[in-house]
Amino acid sequence: MRVVIALGGNALLKRGEPLEIEVQRANIRIAGEAIAAVAAQHEIILTHGNGPQVGLLSLQADAYGDKVQPYPLDVLGAESEGMIGYMLEQELMNQLPGKKLANLITQTLVDHDDPAFDCPEKFVGPVYDKQEADKLADEHGWDFKDDGKYIRRVVPSPEPIAILELEAIRHLTEGGFLVICTGGGGVPVIKKKGILRGIEAVIDKDRASCLLAEKLDFDCLLMLTDVDAVYADWGTEKAHAISEATPDEINPADFPAGSMRPKLEAACQFVRSGGRMAGIGTLADAVAILAGKAGTRIIPAS
Amino acid sequence: MRVVIALGGNALLKRGEPLEIEVQRANIRIAGEAIAAVAAQHEIILTHGNGPQVGLLSLQADAYGDKVQPYPLDVLGAESEGMIGYMLEQELMNQLPGKKLANLITQTLVDHDDPAFDCPEKFVGPVYDKQEADKLADEHGWDFKDDGKYIRRVVPSPEPIAILELEAIRHLTEGGFLVICTGGGGVPVIKKKGILRGIEAVIDKDRASCLLAEKLDFDCLLMLTDVDAVYADWGTEKAHAISEATPDEINPADFPAGSMRPKLEAACQFVRSGGRMAGIGTLADAVAILAGKAGTRIIPAS
Repeated sequence: MRVVIALGGNALLKRGEPLEIEVQRANIRIAGEAIAAVAAQHEIILTHGNGPQVGLLSLQADAYGDKVQPYPLDVLGAESEGMIGYMLEQELMNQLPGKKLANLITQTLVDHDDPAFDCPEKFVGPVYDKQEADKLADEHGWDFKDDGKYIRRVVPSPEPIAILELEAIRHLTEGGFLVICTGGGGVPVIKKKGILRGIEAVIDKDRASCLLAEKLDFDCLLMLTDVDAVYADWGTEKAHAISEATPDEINPADFPAGSMRPKLEAACQFVRSGGRMAGIGTLADAVAILAGKAGTRIIPAS
Repeated sequence: MRVVIALGGNALLKRGEPLEIEVQRANIRIAGEAIAAVAAQHEIILTHGNGPQVGLLSLQADAYGDKVQPYPLDVLGAESEGMIGYMLEQELMNQLPGKKLANLITQTLVDHDDPAFDCPEKFVGPVYDKQEADKLADEHGWDFKDDGKYIRRVVPSPEPIAILELEAIRHLTEGGFLVICTGGGGVPVIKKKGILRGIEAVIDKDRASCLLAEKLDFDCLLMLTDVDAVYADWGTEKAHAISEATPDEINPADFPAGSMRPKLEAACQFVRSGGRMAGIGTLADAVAILAGKAGTRIIPAS
């Protein structure tokens, strides 16, 4: 089968783990083993999240901000694609000697009239107190919202409408290459009067991976994270893993906005548009999810 | 003709210019116009330097170094490939609507027994005083050398022996894509007991671009910088631009190690290995150099 694997940011850097390079390398080694096992049986495109990494780049840029103004989020996103893509590709070259690999920096087009731009709600970067936040809002025009007892910057998360390097990805997959791309959902760009430019936003990587799988007519979309399945009635005595469901049998809105909801939305969208299966589960279960033996699988109504 | 264009770091961020993003974007706009003019007549692969950018990333990582240890140079190099490649690709998409583009993160293999590893001499990162330098040498095993009245870190600059993504680059160029790759000479990696890993080094981008042009059998290697030609007898009354020479007529060792020598070495190597022409000159003269009307051209003996 032809499978788009979307590797969650949490699969590369677990919640609460320090951001040190050796921690990332160790996690990437584990991810590489799981992906290599899938690649032994299936044709793969690999996408990945970048939340913790772009957060670190932003903190580093802020720490040096008196000397050089921090670069905007689109540029930091491209830096994180370079960093993570490089480490993943090198690990896969080691795990899959002889396999043809390519690692593309990708841009994702969004609509500058997307309603998300009027309602930024994705938290990025460090916490601030009110005085710092007001100063940054004045200086940069940034938006801020309360995040618990702190204030954090928020950016829009618009709908991806096109992967700009789609033809390069298609050409490489048709040539037998395992392609790493669309890191962090791709660098967000808008087009105004025919001119592309980067925009301060964060694209949901599962949505972008769904778009990629749809446009390239791949069979499966596999979203790997640190949870073994989607659970119904989570947090109650009746909690149980959902092993298989059709898009009509599941309502993404019933699930938490910050975790399973976007994955289920992407899964349902992919299957409704003709995809054969969308799977959600852990890295270690990747092969088993595709074989129907683990995780949560969203499938077409028969 | 099929042309590898190697864009000098100085063509993207001129000596002494501030590292602000708007300065880089403005320079990249100018570079994009020059490259688009070449692309209208020739088939292109675009490589680029990363000296100022990887220096900035290193300073930013150092500024946050109390919280998260700075990442090693190979990872910073991959970040800089992402950053610069993204900005170049976006600009070229705007300048060349409809052109198929791809932007690859690239690794370059070096020999772990390369004599350069015993003699690190490429300066990277900020200046230190002796006490700081000694502390960093202890902590990280880094090497330091005097750079004028300061002390700076030095890293090896080994010979590139293979571009690991060569087949992806070939496949894309054969499919009609303009490929951006081998940024900063590619991320330096070594292979030990069959396992690839990144190494703290900086590969000369002109040498890596020469290797790329040789392996893909391209016609021309065009090295663009902020100087309009190679000058003989530089700094004397007899100083004059060299417009054309064969590899036997020019001795790279007669030229300054930090500027024209590596370019002339790459140029002579490329032409000796069968290349049709290697050119050196400014961005603005790119088309004219290929037409034989500007810059310095190294050509085979007829």
